[in-house]
Amino acid sequence: MKTIPGGVTAAKGFQAAGVAAAIKPNSTKKDCALIVSDRLATAAGAFTRNLFKAPPVQWSENVCTRGVARAIFANSGNANACTGERGYADAQATAKMVAEGIGARTEEICVLSTGVIGLPLPMDRIANGVQGCLASLRADGSADAAAAIMTTDTVPKETAVELALSGGTVRLGAIAKGAGMIAPNMATMFCLLTTDAAIEPEPLSKILRESVEVSFNRMCVDNDMSTSDSVICLANGASGVPALQPDTKDFGLFADALRDVCIYMAKSLVRDGEGATKFVEIVVNGAASQDDAKSIARAIATSQLCKTAFFGQDPNWGRFACAAGYSGAAFAPEKLCMWIDDIQVMQNGMPADYKEEDAAARMRKPEFQIRVVVGDGPGGAVFWTSDLSHRYVEINADYRT
Amino acid sequence: MKTIPGGVTAAKGFQAAGVAAAIKPNSTKKDCALIVSDRLATAAGAFTRNLFKAPPVQWSENVCTRGVARAIFANSGNANACTGERGYADAQATAKMVAEGIGARTEEICVLSTGVIGLPLPMDRIANGVQGCLASLRADGSADAAAAIMTTDTVPKETAVELALSGGTVRLGAIAKGAGMIAPNMATMFCLLTTDAAIEPEPLSKILRESVEVSFNRMCVDNDMSTSDSVICLANGASGVPALQPDTKDFGLFADALRDVCIYMAKSLVRDGEGATKFVEIVVNGAASQDDAKSIARAIATSQLCKTAFFGQDPNWGRFACAAGYSGAAFAPEKLCMWIDDIQVMQNGMPADYKEEDAAARMRKPEFQIRVVVGDGPGGAVFWTSDLSHRYVEINADYRT
Repeated sequence: MKTIPGGVTAAKGFQAAGVAAAIKPNSTKKDCALIVSDRLATAAGAFTRNLFKAPPVQWSENVCTRGVARAIFANSGNANACTGERGYADAQATAKMVAEGIGARTEEICVLSTGVIGLPLPMDRIANGVQGCLASLRADGSADAAAAIMTTDTVPKETAVELALSGGTVRLGAIAKGAGMIAPNMATMFCLLTTDAAIEPEPLSKILRESVEVSFNRMCVDNDMSTSDSVICLANGASGVPALQPDTKDFGLFADALRDVCIYMAKSLVRDGEGATKFVEIVVNGAASQDDAKSIARAIATSQLCKTAFFGQDPNWGRFACAAGYSGAAFAPEKLCMWIDDIQVMQNGMPADYKEEDAAARMRKPEFQIRVVVGDGPGGAVFWTSDLSHRYVEINADYRT
Repeated sequence: MKTIPGGVTAAKGFQAAGVAAAIKPNSTKKDCALIVSDRLATAAGAFTRNLFKAPPVQWSENVCTRGVARAIFANSGNANACTGERGYADAQATAKMVAEGIGARTEEICVLSTGVIGLPLPMDRIANGVQGCLASLRADGSADAAAAIMTTDTVPKETAVELALSGGTVRLGAIAKGAGMIAPNMATMFCLLTTDAAIEPEPLSKILRESVEVSFNRMCVDNDMSTSDSVICLANGASGVPALQPDTKDFGLFADALRDVCIYMAKSLVRDGEGATKFVEIVVNGAASQDDAKSIARAIATSQLCKTAFFGQDPNWGRFACAAGYSGAAFAPEKLCMWIDDIQVMQNGMPADYKEEDAAARMRKPEFQIRVVVGDGPGGAVFWTSDLSHRYVEINADYRT
């Protein structure tokens, strides 16, 4: 597997576009994105578990349940959430406009919206956005699409890989957005994936869910789960490589690549977390189960006190142990050991013999690891989180003004 | 019931003291507190559920399990947590010094510690603190004790009430501390209560647990549950009023007073939450159960995005609805209604007809209410929370420096 340029248009048979349509009034930023496959593609998705699923999420979930799609349209600036029946009708109308533009059926178009909750979509401007995207679709349009789905993101996120299988080479690409309202269940974000591999809906859905569990469900910016979280993968078979069959070596290689791309994108989202000055990897081992390990890692990753300690570059490991202690996972506190990178700060539930300055030096790096061993059980988990900074408060206190 | 001065020394037969002993090096603040009953008192307690219970918590839990005590000694500046066997021995040694000073048995002395985690107690200075407190015990010493248990608190918290029962008048007083590491299960704080009523250990423990559930377990500053949360009540019977018997009117009046004092103190802690500029009451009704109502109220109270919106005085109710949606409670989103004080902002899952400026005006007040009705079920709950401000980040990024 090797990284290649091109994002969601690296895979054969895909075009993309991103244009500005003032979805957020007075904005001149790109805010409408379109990804189109030149043929009907297998579609799979994973979506927010929030009771307030935004209407576009409900619409796209239905598309993915049917298992085939031709395109994904996404806008930023307005989440079309808490908008009731009108919101669903607006999502459907958007899909219809895209379908007519590319000669597909309405139910073959995924639509996604992100931005402010509770305002109706400005459908006249959405129509302009759809037409603008249709007019500017390009085989190298991934970067425009990646820019158009950004909200508080400071950098666009895209990646692509090339994978040699026994039947030939396939490509897999992705764009993603999300910097706040990020909690791991699923995290608040979009990730739109394309591949020119051929694969049936059911196995694609299975490996997508497995990839999401160890990537977007293992990250945290602020522990708030949005109404719009969506990961969608389109597989159009344009590579000409024979369809991937479960339980074959090629299938395993493809599943690994999908997981790695999702992990790469999840890390990119955390690195660009709202106000983030630190990227912290939490590794937990020795728990009674994977679920326990995940609970402990998540408690540390989401704790306001741990996150302010990361921001303050303060090796105040008592806070990390405290969070592990209230995570709900059962373990023997007197067995807990903890490291900040290579510095052991806690041994068997008590302070280890280390120099405060050595631990502080590790936390002054932009990226570091907190490693926790809670016993000798088989459970392990990895989580990625950012710090809680002044800038986070600024961004979110003033989000709508 | 009427409010009276005197705090924990309002009840007959109690003395208190607070002195400075430099438990936190280079500090000149009061940091050791002692409350002594002139006779053996019934003791009941409620303690943190964190796996990392600090050794003093373990010690005091054992005292309360036995049901009788003479005194409570508490220090700030050092939590004596994650300190292993030495920590437990230090807690015991502290109790022994107090016991010798007042002519009691070691196992009749509760000890509590709050402050930095992971450092051994400086026992020479603790000894000075104990002796200093013993030498300055006074029948009007509550304010000194309240000051001595403060950490990041900006104001001391004390209250007392007088209650006319059929057998005569009893008094109930309290001091409390806690401004950060506050999560409702139980919240990270101390509340030390005294009463000159007579009551057996088992009924006292029962009404204390019930009071804690609707007071300290219903508040949030930052959703971090400490290793040292403790509520302890001593009832010494010095009023001369006959012992309170369960299922009598007098017992009910006393239980109500205990609950009201706990709620008053819980609100005081949230008002003094680290960096708090707002006090927000979350009221949820119409849920399928009390537990569901509590989950919804807690999700809104603990959400970083809701708390930054409170700080920003931004009626961004989409965030409140979003938190309700991921709370885990089951309800029909299309039935949700929401008010900010008297302004209805959401009706049946969609925006209500209101003026943004009216809602914003309510949030500019130092205290306001978010009221949520999720259906027509019997479940209701109240929660109290503060906002997430720049000052919170400052306090916690720089806590140890």
